[in-house]
Amino acid sequence: MTQDHLIAQIHRKKSFLCIGLDVDLKKIPEHLLQEEDPIFSFNKAIIDATHELCVAYKPNTAFYEAHGIKGWESLKKTIDYLNENHPEIFTIADAKRGDIGNTSTMYAKAFFEDMNFDSITIAPYMGKDSVEPFLAFKDKHTILLALTSNDGAFDFQTKKLGNKELYKQVLETSLTYTNSEKLMYVVGATKAEYLADIRNIIPNSFLLVPGVGAQGGSLQEVCRYGMTKDIGLLVNSSRSIIYASSNKDFAHAAARKAKEMQTQMEIELDALSK
Amino acid sequence: MTQDHLIAQIHRKKSFLCIGLDVDLKKIPEHLLQEEDPIFSFNKAIIDATHELCVAYKPNTAFYEAHGIKGWESLKKTIDYLNENHPEIFTIADAKRGDIGNTSTMYAKAFFEDMNFDSITIAPYMGKDSVEPFLAFKDKHTILLALTSNDGAFDFQTKKLGNKELYKQVLETSLTYTNSEKLMYVVGATKAEYLADIRNIIPNSFLLVPGVGAQGGSLQEVCRYGMTKDIGLLVNSSRSIIYASSNKDFAHAAARKAKEMQTQMEIELDALSK
Repeated sequence: MTQDHLIAQIHRKKSFLCIGLDVDLKKIPEHLLQEEDPIFSFNKAIIDATHELCVAYKPNTAFYEAHGIKGWESLKKTIDYLNENHPEIFTIADAKRGDIGNTSTMYAKAFFEDMNFDSITIAPYMGKDSVEPFLAFKDKHTILLALTSNDGAFDFQTKKLGNKELYKQVLETSLTYTNSEKLMYVVGATKAEYLADIRNIIPNSFLLVPGVGAQGGSLQEVCRYGMTKDIGLLVNSSRSIIYASSNKDFAHAAARKAKEMQTQMEIELDALSK
Repeated sequence: MTQDHLIAQIHRKKSFLCIGLDVDLKKIPEHLLQEEDPIFSFNKAIIDATHELCVAYKPNTAFYEAHGIKGWESLKKTIDYLNENHPEIFTIADAKRGDIGNTSTMYAKAFFEDMNFDSITIAPYMGKDSVEPFLAFKDKHTILLALTSNDGAFDFQTKKLGNKELYKQVLETSLTYTNSEKLMYVVGATKAEYLADIRNIIPNSFLLVPGVGAQGGSLQEVCRYGMTKDIGLLVNSSRSIIYASSNKDFAHAAARKAKEMQTQMEIELDALSK
């Protein structure tokens, strides 16, 4: 999917919501556990109920791998369902991969070719030759971890490397990579005060913003400092939407929560176009 | 597996060789492609031929994920084969994972419980709460990326964070993590000159050392600067062993290459005990 296609979709749906499909069997409604593939059944119901309110879905691969081959099958069924029924949706493999060149190419094949995701999250620690293999794929996007939403982000990311913080060095260095125009970045909503500085380095790139909702980040703050004329934001919410209810009404409850988010986003988008 | 068990095995086999099972269908002998599961058939033959010459095997997950569910099945069969037939072998999932706390717990379950690997490689960028969930597992080891063998390592790892390089900051900070005694570290053989400094920070920890062989690192240099009284080294070789021949004699050729490495290692171990 091209970035223009993503932007057009945001305008049409008046939403830049990404829903994280982090499916934990301990948290999904009990009646689903009797289904043949409870994880896929859960995802399908959530997707059917919310796909008009969001522009992206982001399965976190850890929640699937934890169930071995069966989990991998659930992930494949989920991405296939999305690609077949909702090709307008931007799909993100939240995999946080990254390895030396020939190995990163293998990961890129896994997620861009075998699974046909539109994008993947990547850890920057191993540098240039661990990132560029992903950037070589046409109409695919690489979402680099810059400043994450967790407390551990203060261990290294916000420490000064030379005269600037590591996350800023990651942003600047990544702009020198071949095909860097296909890069997007993870910036946590819990650190919205950093967004103004980040926009000085990457004024137009899309940001994937986790941490609004369950982790306490504010949508208004994120938009105030992070939004660009082409929006430039995908705001992710996982638990607060998909686990809005643990009863049989879970999909309906998820849609209600997603609608709340979409309504707030519509206000921000309206303000932008004025 | 405990660290003492690993050390005992090194002394018994007179080897600290780890063989990387990075199986690429384009590189394995053609006659195997007719088998039902060529990747597993290749791994089984390599393991059968080399298990007395090495103390560890390290499948890189990328090479399995690239084949989707079928690849994941090959990986599961490989680790099951190792655990059933060679329980004395130290197994490493070269997965380079790392995510926020609850997600890292899911990855730990995937590799330590579902797959029953002894250890996993982890990227440090997300800090403390992305690493500690792995350290909570009994008799399992977490191998943190410190200084990798690729060129991209110079993008961030060797840059100065405050008054010290990022990789040294990673080493020092990781020692403050709960259960840090279960940590091991990836240090590339292509950067052996850094090993003396590294041993000042982590004098006793095991290092997983890639880059000897195909990538040009020297075993002698690695031992000179990196070996401890309890050895403290696992030296990995992947391509130069497993692809020693692309003919029907591939397993025999791999064993011959592994034997060469083991012989050099025996000399280093003999020198240590003098």
